[in-house]
Amino acid sequence: MPTLQSIETAPSSLPSPSPKHRVVILGGGFGGLYAAQQLGRTEEVQVTLIDKRNFHLFQPLLYQVAMGGLSPGDIASPLRGVLSQQKNTQVLMGEVVDLDPQTKTVILKEGEGVAYDSLIVATGMSHFYFGRDDWAEIAPGLKTVEDALEMRRRIFGAFETAEKATDPDLRQALLTFVIVGAGPTGVELAGALAELAFHTLKPDFRRIDTGQTRILLVEGMDRVLPPFPPELSVRAQQDLEKMGVEVFTQTLVTDIAGHQVTLKQGDHLRTVSAATVLWAAGVRDPGMGGILADRTRVDRDRSGRVIVGPDLSIPGYPDIFVVGDLAHYGHQGDRPLPGIAPVAMQEGQYVARLLQKRLQSETLPDFRYKDGGSLAVIGRHSAVVNFPKGKLTGFPAWFVWLFVHVFFLIEFDNKVIVMIQWASNYITRKQGSRLITERILTHD
Amino acid sequence: MPTLQSIETAPSSLPSPSPKHRVVILGGGFGGLYAAQQLGRTEEVQVTLIDKRNFHLFQPLLYQVAMGGLSPGDIASPLRGVLSQQKNTQVLMGEVVDLDPQTKTVILKEGEGVAYDSLIVATGMSHFYFGRDDWAEIAPGLKTVEDALEMRRRIFGAFETAEKATDPDLRQALLTFVIVGAGPTGVELAGALAELAFHTLKPDFRRIDTGQTRILLVEGMDRVLPPFPPELSVRAQQDLEKMGVEVFTQTLVTDIAGHQVTLKQGDHLRTVSAATVLWAAGVRDPGMGGILADRTRVDRDRSGRVIVGPDLSIPGYPDIFVVGDLAHYGHQGDRPLPGIAPVAMQEGQYVARLLQKRLQSETLPDFRYKDGGSLAVIGRHSAVVNFPKGKLTGFPAWFVWLFVHVFFLIEFDNKVIVMIQWASNYITRKQGSRLITERILTHD
Repeated sequence: MPTLQSIETAPSSLPSPSPKHRVVILGGGFGGLYAAQQLGRTEEVQVTLIDKRNFHLFQPLLYQVAMGGLSPGDIASPLRGVLSQQKNTQVLMGEVVDLDPQTKTVILKEGEGVAYDSLIVATGMSHFYFGRDDWAEIAPGLKTVEDALEMRRRIFGAFETAEKATDPDLRQALLTFVIVGAGPTGVELAGALAELAFHTLKPDFRRIDTGQTRILLVEGMDRVLPPFPPELSVRAQQDLEKMGVEVFTQTLVTDIAGHQVTLKQGDHLRTVSAATVLWAAGVRDPGMGGILADRTRVDRDRSGRVIVGPDLSIPGYPDIFVVGDLAHYGHQGDRPLPGIAPVAMQEGQYVARLLQKRLQSETLPDFRYKDGGSLAVIGRHSAVVNFPKGKLTGFPAWFVWLFVHVFFLIEFDNKVIVMIQWASNYITRKQGSRLITERILTHD
Repeated sequence: MPTLQSIETAPSSLPSPSPKHRVVILGGGFGGLYAAQQLGRTEEVQVTLIDKRNFHLFQPLLYQVAMGGLSPGDIASPLRGVLSQQKNTQVLMGEVVDLDPQTKTVILKEGEGVAYDSLIVATGMSHFYFGRDDWAEIAPGLKTVEDALEMRRRIFGAFETAEKATDPDLRQALLTFVIVGAGPTGVELAGALAELAFHTLKPDFRRIDTGQTRILLVEGMDRVLPPFPPELSVRAQQDLEKMGVEVFTQTLVTDIAGHQVTLKQGDHLRTVSAATVLWAAGVRDPGMGGILADRTRVDRDRSGRVIVGPDLSIPGYPDIFVVGDLAHYGHQGDRPLPGIAPVAMQEGQYVARLLQKRLQSETLPDFRYKDGGSLAVIGRHSAVVNFPKGKLTGFPAWFVWLFVHVFFLIEFDNKVIVMIQWASNYITRKQGSRLITERILTHD
C-alpha cells in the first residue's frame, strides 16, 4: 500500500508554497471549478482542487447518459485537462474525511493533511430516500456517472426482458416505469423515456410493442416543476401528457416491493405493477456538511445544508466558505437559493473574487445571486423557461435550453462532440450510446 | 422473477415461423453480425441473433477506450438498431448455456429453448492467463467494455496515486507499466500508453514528471507482432523504442505479486517494480467450445477452438457452423486462420451464403479466406501493414490503418463521432474520455 505522508510538509517536487496564499477547494463541480478558474490568474495564490473523481461532470445532461443518448465521456471533462494551463493550480484526486479549523488542515482518506489559508467547500449533495434507504437498491437516483449507467442498464434491460417474457402481466410490468419526483430531473427523465419508448425503440423489437409502455411521473407537491411559476407547471404537465406520460401530483410512494409500487393520493391507495422505479426526489448531505457542523458548530437545515453567512463563509470562520448545493443561502428572497448550476457557478466566482479582494486588504459587498432565468427541458421541441422578464414554453423554450447547454458545455471544454451527437440523435431519432454495461460496484 | 417458457413453443406475438428456415446465430461480433446482415434480405429464413450483450463492439478500437481516447458508446452499436430494418430478424439478449443437436435446440440461461434449423456459433474467445487464473485480478485483459474501463481506471489511477506519493520508489513503481504480450493488442496498448505518458499527460501534473514513465512490453516469442513478416516486426520494435517503450522479447512473466513483476529471459531472472500490469497474451474458449465438444464430440485445439470442416460446419453436423475466433480452420495454408476481424466477417458471410444456396438445393465450394492484408497500429503516425502484394510502415501504414478503421466503423453504423473525436484528439493531443469510473462488478 502507498505510504503517504502529509503532502504539505513534504512537497516532493513543488517549490515551497509558504509565501503564497493557499486556497484549497473541495469538489470539482460547478461551484469548485468556477472558483478555481476565477483564481487561475491570481499569482498571489496557490490553488489545490481536491475531488474524489478525476473529472468535472456536466450534471444537467446526466439524464441523457441514462437514456443512452450520450456517453459518460461526452459530458465529463478531466479536471487536470481543464486546469492544466493554470500554473498556480494543482489537482489532487482524493477523498476528504475530516477537517481541523484550528490547524487549518483538511484530512484525506489515506491520512495526508492538506493545509489551507482559505477553504472553499463545494462537495454538493446526494439523493435522499426519505428514510427508506433500502429503496436505494430498488430505485436508482441520478447524481453520478455510475448512477446514470445503472439507470440505463435497468431501462434497456427491462425492454430486453420484456421481449423474452411470455406472461402478459409480467410483460406489462416490465414495460411500466415509475419516476419518483417531478422536479427538473424527473420531468427530463419522463420526457426522454417517452421519446425512447414511443419513437426510438419502436422499430427495434419484434415481440413487444414499446408503444404499450406506461410512464408514471409521481410528485408529492400539487404540480410538476414546483420551483417554477404555476402556469409553466401547467404547460409542462400538458406537454408531458401529450407525449404519453401519466402525471400523478399530490401523490406519495409509500411502498416498493417486488414489482409492486404503492402510490398514495390523499386517502386513496393504488398499486401499480412496475419493474423499474427511477428516483428523482430528495437531497441530503453526503457527509461533508456533517463534518463541517462537527468541527465549526455551524447550523444546518433539515436536508443537512450548511447555513452560510452573507459572504458564503461559515459564521465565526471567515476563511471557510461553502458554495453550491451544500450551501443554504438564506440572505436573498423568501426561500434559500435553489441547488442549481448557475447558483453554484456564481457562488464559486464570488468567493474567489472575495479572496482576491482580501489579498489587497479590500472586501466585497454581500453575495447576490443574479437570476438569469431557470429552465427545464421536457422533450423534443418542448421545454419551459422562466426568465426574470418573461416566460417561454414549447419550441422557443426548447431552443433556448439547447443554446444555453451547448454554450456552457463548450465554455471550458470543447465539447463539440455533444452537439454533433445531438444533431445525429435529433435527425435519426436513434440513441447510439444505449449499451448495457455490467453492474458497477460502488465503494460508497 | 420472470417466468419464462420455451420461446419457440409460445411465440406470444410472432406469426408462426414454421414454414421458414430458422437460422439461430449465437454472438453479435463480426462473424455473427455479418452472417445476420447477409441473410437480411432472404425471405425464406427467419433469423434469431442471440447475444449476452445488447450491442456489437468494434473490438479493434477497444484499446482506445482503455486509453481514454474514446467512450464505450463510440465503438458500440446497439444490435437492435443495426438490425432493425431486417424484417426477418429478431434479436434476443440472453446467454446460451447448452445445446441439444438431436432436438436442434439451444438452451438459454433462464431455461428457454430456442429451436433452429441451422445454427451459427460465433461466440468468440476470452483471454487466458496460462494457468495463472489468479492473475486475472492483477492484470486485466482487453476483451470487453468492462475490461477496457478497468484498464483505464488502473492506468489513470496509477498517475493520480503517483502524484500524491512522496516515496520516490513507490512513485516510480506507480509510473511503471508492464504489458504482457506483443501481438497487435499489446503493441497498440504500448504505443498509446507512450503517447499518453510522454505527451498528453505531461502538462497536467505538478509533482510528477510523466516523462519518467517506464513502459515494458514483454513477449515470449523472439519478436513483436509474431504473425507479421519479420521485417515488419523489426520496424515495429524500432518505432516502439523511438516512442520510449522498452521491448523484451523471448521473455516470460513468471510471477506477479505486490508491485513486483518477475521476468525470465532465457536463464536470466529480473524483477521490476511496477504497479500496473496489462494483459494482452493468450486466448481460450470461454465455454461454448466446450459445450459443442460435449454435445457433438467435435475435436478442439489446445486453446479450445473448434476444429471445423472445409465448409465451417462441425463434422457430422452439417447444420451447425462455427465462425470467427472460436473456429479453428485448418484447410488453408500451414497454420489455422488467425483470430482477426476480417476472417470472422468472411466466415460469417460464407456460412450465410451457403445457407442461401442450400435453400435452393445448391451448395458452395469450400471456404477460402481472401487475405486483404493485416495491419497493426503502433502510435501517432506509425503502423505496419502487410498486404499480400507489399508492405507498408510508418506514416503511410498509419494512414491506411486510419482509413480502414473509419471505413468499417461507418459501414454499418454511422460513427462519424469517432472520426471527429479522433480529429480532435489528434489536433489537441488531449484525451477527453479519460474519466475514471468505479470498479465494475462482473458476473462472469
